[in-house]
Formats: sequence, structure tokens, C-alpha cells
Amino acid sequence: MLEKIRIVLINTSHPGNIGAAARAMKTMGLSRLVLVQPNKFPGARATARASGADDVLANAQVCNSLEEGLCDCNLVIGTSARQRSIPWPVLSPGAYAQKALALNGQTALLFGREHSGLTNEELEYCHYLVQIPVNPAFRSLNVASAVQVLAYELHCAATALQNENGAPVSDVECPVSAKAMNLFYQHLEQTMIDIGYYDPEKPKYLMRRLRRLFNRAELDESELNILRGILAAAQKKAEVRHK
Amino acid sequence: MLEKIRIVLINTSHPGNIGAAARAMKTMGLSRLVLVQPNKFPGARATARASGADDVLANAQVCNSLEEGLCDCNLVIGTSARQRSIPWPVLSPGAYAQKALALNGQTALLFGREHSGLTNEELEYCHYLVQIPVNPAFRSLNVASAVQVLAYELHCAATALQNENGAPVSDVECPVSAKAMNLFYQHLEQTMIDIGYYDPEKPKYLMRRLRRLFNRAELDESELNILRGILAAAQKKAEVRHK
Repeated sequence: MLEKIRIVLINTSHPGNIGAAARAMKTMGLSRLVLVQPNKFPGARATARASGADDVLANAQVCNSLEEGLCDCNLVIGTSARQRSIPWPVLSPGAYAQKALALNGQTALLFGREHSGLTNEELEYCHYLVQIPVNPAFRSLNVASAVQVLAYELHCAATALQNENGAPVSDVECPVSAKAMNLFYQHLEQTMIDIGYYDPEKPKYLMRRLRRLFNRAELDESELNILRGILAAAQKKAEVRHK
Repeated sequence: MLEKIRIVLINTSHPGNIGAAARAMKTMGLSRLVLVQPNKFPGARATARASGADDVLANAQVCNSLEEGLCDCNLVIGTSARQRSIPWPVLSPGAYAQKALALNGQTALLFGREHSGLTNEELEYCHYLVQIPVNPAFRSLNVASAVQVLAYELHCAATALQNENGAPVSDVECPVSAKAMNLFYQHLEQTMIDIGYYDPEKPKYLMRRLRRLFNRAELDESELNILRGILAAAQKKAEVRHK
């Protein structure tokens, strides 16, 4: 049940945190680790801190871009300790765990840099943010500790589901992949340019707001096809052709 | 509410774990740390891993015996990853947190050595054991990670208790009215006709699907304005005017 969930660490500076995250994952039954441009990996420090979770490190996928790490994911969840300038839909750790396990598809849980978290561009890939409640006077949760808490919530939720009857989980409709959503956003942006609504020189957060809206809607495939059909028709009327 | 709970680390070998435990505590609003015969404390390694939770380290009470550290405690809870030879009453992390907060008295939460946990003699001080559910094939939870998970449960339980008495929290953005959504759907339908995407004679549930999608998204006012702006631009390019 937990194999459909991957932990994605972005630009991790300290290799010890990668090892500690792998250990945290394995204690809670998670195994898929994705590293986007880690500062140093593999290495002795990561291995030492993994303390036996060597298989998680050995099977870790190292990527050059977040897009590569997310390409077949259906649900993308960011973790964030701070208030964001753009409000994004926020889940509690418990609600996040329920949602990820109910989904019949791949989920990515993103963890940003040690000092600065996720960028706004990375946030735009996310359907939701999950916020671990912390002491407002000291929000400095270590990244591997954050992995530990969320992996713990996943483990608890998975155990509760298994105890309910041992039956496999629901068939909640599966949102389309991050890759398909990216193509949709490119199409949307181009169409807005073609119809004269959008000037890429003066973006004013427009694409970010639209991403937030459509990510939240968790489009399924037929809905995505309808929206792309509408965009194509608008482009055709605007008499602009793109290959 | 959390000041009546102390974290007791027994014979900790690695000073880094002491620092990491202090950091974990402070992120969750805990401040009382007791160290029973630590291998090395204070020291640079503990301070580095505390990452700013210096006050927790500075105020830590260092004891020569467990008895000394527990002397004014009303409730003593041990943490344990393994099955004990002596069965002891076991609480889940959530039940433990409820119990500790409900008590009008001092609670100690004991964490044993990195490799061997609590001795049977130490266990005998405990009213209960709390067990963090872990992967049975890999029980190797780091001691600071265990502190993190239990401190997190305490923090969540304390917040829930405060919310019961205090003011409600949420400040969720308010979706627009049903009337505004209806005007939007009319605008969407007309635009789809204007750009040649939609034939009202052969509707095939198209509007119903779009309503389901956009209702689910719970649009706020500024999002609605963006979408209506896009529709108006598409209509303008299609050179159709409606009064």
C-alpha cells in the first residue's frame, strides 16, 4: 500500500540528512526515495546515518530536475513550514495520509532545501501543501525529522486501513500525471497569448494562480481532454497555428 | 500545557542525538530535557545538531541516576521498540499524549540507549510503555526521531485541546456564490458556442462535466474573474458580440 508513495528531496545540502531520511522511511515501511540534484550523493555520511537502510539509498533515483522525478505522479504534495505568499490548499498530516492512501495512483511528497524549503516554482507542481504543526516560535524542523513525522502518519493510516478489513483500498478517480498537467499549462498559456489575454512580459502571477486552481481540481483524463478541446477551439478561432 | 512534560534520555552515546532531540523538542514546544549519564555533554556536536535550540541544551538537567531525574514526576512512561520479556501496559502514541496532557502533574518520557533501549530495571520505573508503530522488518528508529514523533503527538494533542476551549481556527477562503457560478457557466457555455467547440443541440453531458469540475475547485472571486477574463478574450477574438 505504501509502495505508491515516493519521498522527493530537493537540493539536499547535507548528505547526513539523506541517510537519516532513508532510515526514517524504512522504519515506517516506505522505500521509494527520489533525490533531485543532491549536493553530495552517494557518500559515507549518508550511508552512516542510514544505519542499515542501505537498500533505500541503493535504489534511490537521482534526477537532474524536479520534472523528471515527478513525471508519472498523479498527486504531488509539498511540505512547507512557513506561510507562503500565495495561499495554497493545505492539508494536515493526518488528512494528507488518508488522501495519499485512498488514491489509486502515484503520490510524490516533496521536501525542499534545508534552509529555504521549496521555491514558488516548485510549489506550482503541487496539488496541496501539507503542514506539520510546529511551535510558531521555532519552526526549524530538520528535513529528515519532517520525513519521519509524515512517514509515521502514513504508516499509522496504512495500518488502520489494513485493520479495517484487509481489503484493498477505494477506487477514487485518479488525477492525470504531472507531465500531462504541464502540457496542459503550456497549452493554456499559449492560448491566452493567442487570444490576447496574457502578456508573458507582464505575468503578474497569472499562471501561478491558474496552476493553483487547476491543481486543486485534480483533473481526470476526460476533463483534461475537454479543457484542451476548448483551448484548441479558441486558438483556431484566433487563427493562430502552432506546430 | 507542555511544560509539565520532560524528555529523559538515558546513557545517550552520540552527542549528535542529544542535539537533534533538543531541536525536535523545541519545534514541538517542549523545553525540559533531562540527561542521565550522557556519554559526552555538553559539546560542539550536540550544539551543532540542536540548530538553534540552544536554550533547551543550556537548561538541560544532567543526572547521575534515573532516580534523580524522576524524583518529582507523577507519571513515568517508557519508550520501547521491541517486545519486552516482561509484558507492560502499552499505550499508542496518541493515547499517551492524551494521558500526559490530562494529568495535573509532571510526566517523564524515557528514551533508552541507542542500541539497547531501556533495561528491565529502568522499565520498572514506568507506569506505561508507549510504542511507536514501526516496520516489523526494520525497527531501527533513531532516538531523536522517536523524540520527534512523540513530541509531535503531544503538540497535536495540546493544540486540539486549546482549540476546544479557544477560538476556532480556520480562515479558509470563501468560494463565490452559486449565483456567480451560474453566471460563469452561462458565460462558459456561450463562449464554447462562439468558438465552435460546443453544439447545444448535441450536449452530451458536457456542461454537467464542466460544472462538476469547477464546482469541485471551489473558485474564489479573483479566480472567477480570471476565468471570465479569459472567456471574454476568446469571445473577442472570435469576433462575436453579445449584449
